[in-house]
Amino acid sequence: MAKELTSREENYSQWYNDLVIKADLAENSAVRGCMVIKPYGYAIWEKMQSALDNMFKETGHENAYFPLFIPKSFFAKEAAHVEGFAKECAVVTHYRLKNDGKGGVEVDESAKLEEELIIRPTSETIIWDTYKKWVQSYRDLPLLINQWANVVRWEMRTRLFLRTAEFLWQEGHTAHATKDEAVNETELILNIYAEFAEKWMGVPVLKGVKTPGERFAGAIETYCIEALMQDGKALQAGTSHFLGQNFAKAFDVKYLTKENKLEYVWATSWGVSTRLIGALIMAHSDDYGLVLPPKLAPIQVVIVPIYRKPEQLEAITIVVETIVKDLKAKGISVKFDNRDTQKPGYKFAEWELKGVPVRLAIGPRDLENGTVEVARRDTLEKEVLAIKDIAAKIENLLEIIQNNIFEKALAFRDDNTFNVDTWDEFKNRIEQGGFVWAHWDGTDETEEKIKNETKATIRLIPIDGKMEDGICVYSGKSSEQRVVFAKAY
Amino acid sequence: MAKELTSREENYSQWYNDLVIKADLAENSAVRGCMVIKPYGYAIWEKMQSALDNMFKETGHENAYFPLFIPKSFFAKEAAHVEGFAKECAVVTHYRLKNDGKGGVEVDESAKLEEELIIRPTSETIIWDTYKKWVQSYRDLPLLINQWANVVRWEMRTRLFLRTAEFLWQEGHTAHATKDEAVNETELILNIYAEFAEKWMGVPVLKGVKTPGERFAGAIETYCIEALMQDGKALQAGTSHFLGQNFAKAFDVKYLTKENKLEYVWATSWGVSTRLIGALIMAHSDDYGLVLPPKLAPIQVVIVPIYRKPEQLEAITIVVETIVKDLKAKGISVKFDNRDTQKPGYKFAEWELKGVPVRLAIGPRDLENGTVEVARRDTLEKEVLAIKDIAAKIENLLEIIQNNIFEKALAFRDDNTFNVDTWDEFKNRIEQGGFVWAHWDGTDETEEKIKNETKATIRLIPIDGKMEDGICVYSGKSSEQRVVFAKAY
Repeated sequence: MAKELTSREENYSQWYNDLVIKADLAENSAVRGCMVIKPYGYAIWEKMQSALDNMFKETGHENAYFPLFIPKSFFAKEAAHVEGFAKECAVVTHYRLKNDGKGGVEVDESAKLEEELIIRPTSETIIWDTYKKWVQSYRDLPLLINQWANVVRWEMRTRLFLRTAEFLWQEGHTAHATKDEAVNETELILNIYAEFAEKWMGVPVLKGVKTPGERFAGAIETYCIEALMQDGKALQAGTSHFLGQNFAKAFDVKYLTKENKLEYVWATSWGVSTRLIGALIMAHSDDYGLVLPPKLAPIQVVIVPIYRKPEQLEAITIVVETIVKDLKAKGISVKFDNRDTQKPGYKFAEWELKGVPVRLAIGPRDLENGTVEVARRDTLEKEVLAIKDIAAKIENLLEIIQNNIFEKALAFRDDNTFNVDTWDEFKNRIEQGGFVWAHWDGTDETEEKIKNETKATIRLIPIDGKMEDGICVYSGKSSEQRVVFAKAY
Repeated sequence: MAKELTSREENYSQWYNDLVIKADLAENSAVRGCMVIKPYGYAIWEKMQSALDNMFKETGHENAYFPLFIPKSFFAKEAAHVEGFAKECAVVTHYRLKNDGKGGVEVDESAKLEEELIIRPTSETIIWDTYKKWVQSYRDLPLLINQWANVVRWEMRTRLFLRTAEFLWQEGHTAHATKDEAVNETELILNIYAEFAEKWMGVPVLKGVKTPGERFAGAIETYCIEALMQDGKALQAGTSHFLGQNFAKAFDVKYLTKENKLEYVWATSWGVSTRLIGALIMAHSDDYGLVLPPKLAPIQVVIVPIYRKPEQLEAITIVVETIVKDLKAKGISVKFDNRDTQKPGYKFAEWELKGVPVRLAIGPRDLENGTVEVARRDTLEKEVLAIKDIAAKIENLLEIIQNNIFEKALAFRDDNTFNVDTWDEFKNRIEQGGFVWAHWDGTDETEEKIKNETKATIRLIPIDGKMEDGICVYSGKSSEQRVVFAKAY
């Protein structure tokens, strides 16, 4: 089974596609650019949702739900937003079908909408149109609201999880009385995203802000986290936008201050999507399949019985049932793979492909010795352990694996991070992949030229990076800080 | 505050609308027929989702996600389904907007889809198109899959929660090797829905099957649960469909049996939606506002301090913090309403409006006496209890309230359930509301005539109703079993 995967070295892109399909995470649907998220892939998304949702709620956010549709005219209300989002959208023009007289259906031309509706590509406009009704006084602020929803962006070139026409995400939309509060919110969420990426996904991230050219359409400042994939390309894993008063002005959302003055409200928005599953796959997995961090693995431990005779399976099952009970008591998810239709070797390969962090194998000899074979997915190492106290040992092992996966990804990023000071070295490094820290003169023009010549973009301007005088790697003009370049997904 | 509600007696329909708005559950959006579910309303939905999701998973179901869009041609594949669902749908015809040169945007006519896409009104077609790829052999069965999603049906007359163009729901879609298995699944889910309605929502339900005229388009048998609202109208609260092999045949989904024969797969589908929130409101609430069963209340206990001076609030707060800690330790959600911008009377009315099951009030006198005033939302009764062991008493009280809400609704249903044997009595009873058990001759014709003359529909044919010879209340023809009639939402 595992052998069917293309290796990363052979063709990284094909390896990714193979893995998503063969590990039963997702597949393409009959609708161009839209994916079906299969149960195993969706279970990872549920774990991500649950962790993030808790973090949002612990910081005072509430969930709500806003309409799927946005009236076309709403997009024209915020000048920058319309440029960014009113492009590749799904447009609803009619609201009825009728029989075509040939056994099929056709659009009923008499049921044409007066104003077309756009399937939300993001919800700032419909939400700020609503906030106008919710905000009158400072007592109504802050509004700290999130929604879990599907959105649609009509991408021409799609890839499962990384770029699909429809995807699932969360989008937070907050309203504040002051600029400081809104900026603090933007940074709070950036830190939540970074913590989630590192502590749950095991993916180290850089934190920073986007250049004006890479900002969200309508934002004053876009904060982001960027991760490095195994092929040396960067992946934007989450963004948090400080929107200033742009949407408040576009939708006329004002509040009465304590001093009885009317002021525009300050806004943020922020989101992460099912794209994170793509990042998770590409950050850790290997040529045998997925490598999942225990905190996001739908199944944390799989137990495979090794037997020839039914009575051996019976004896093994008795022991396994105790182990399963002990593991579950510790909140560890476990599957006993007692299918009699497959051999152990097949099962081993299947659970490796699916990235289950720990595999236990138990045969008749183990029963005699009171032992079990424990295999780690991250290192592929095996050891034989006493069954006594096995649950506590595995609990500990899962923590070790969680940390190791992060440390490995961090070491990879360190090995692929370069300070570069000349244009020749820059071009060479970018070609080989990795994060390239270089001086930039701060102009759109230079950013654009570098992108055209190397396909590299400025992933972020680090927010905790140290200031350092230097000269722009492209123009030779002066610069005060290195920024991070990479080719990106 | 509470006084702003229209009373139920005055205008039940207006009372409902007022309540949904004033209790901050939902509101109409800028898009015709689409609602905004506000945080307090959404929190109820999250509790419903969590309880149902656990019940589905405990019975072996997994979640997945299928596309929002359905190619138009898919609807034509199942003959009955096309009649039922390919009507009032949102139709996507284009995938791009462009600047209109006047600061706005317009549809780019050059970006017309070859085949129009329908926003899913239900997902049988796109899912069965997918199952074709997932099912080859009996080893792939059963498929027990659910999705939580938004769907769109272009209703002309909409009401918040009860009937909206877009709504949220779960839809289960299962595939089985045998007819018996599929029928068992349909019944299993019906029982889960009934248990959820009664044990969580506190809403007693009748279980039965629909007449052919009321069946889901494409189903062989539609099972349903029906609840009685306080105005005497019925509300269908959940449906579970046995689909036979209709969709398997339409999408050519066959499997290889153990005996190596190719057979069509058997199917079910089932769903409940945000409509349940409407049922919850109408079953229990009163002229003061919402009455929420503790198991679904976003806030189970609210604590209101009674004080004049800041130092009194300080002393109260110290005691309240202990109570809050003790309640939270028992998994009870609690809010300490220490806003200094509102008087206690305002707060009492607000939390009554929002249906919080238990309200505690504590003033300086209570501190002296070591007591607290406990008010039940369901009965509006108050009692003074010792603070000692208050958490245990409240835990017990929440259970009592949960049961009382159910018992009250059950008594109401009993009082409004009638066996009727003559046409005059039938017309009279239907006019006054309630469930009317009457004999029916089993024909579509009679069903249709009764509907036209009285607006009553057959809500269900009871599955556990006793057989009893009688004559049809309308036609006088013979009948073997009473069925349940009512006017319905």
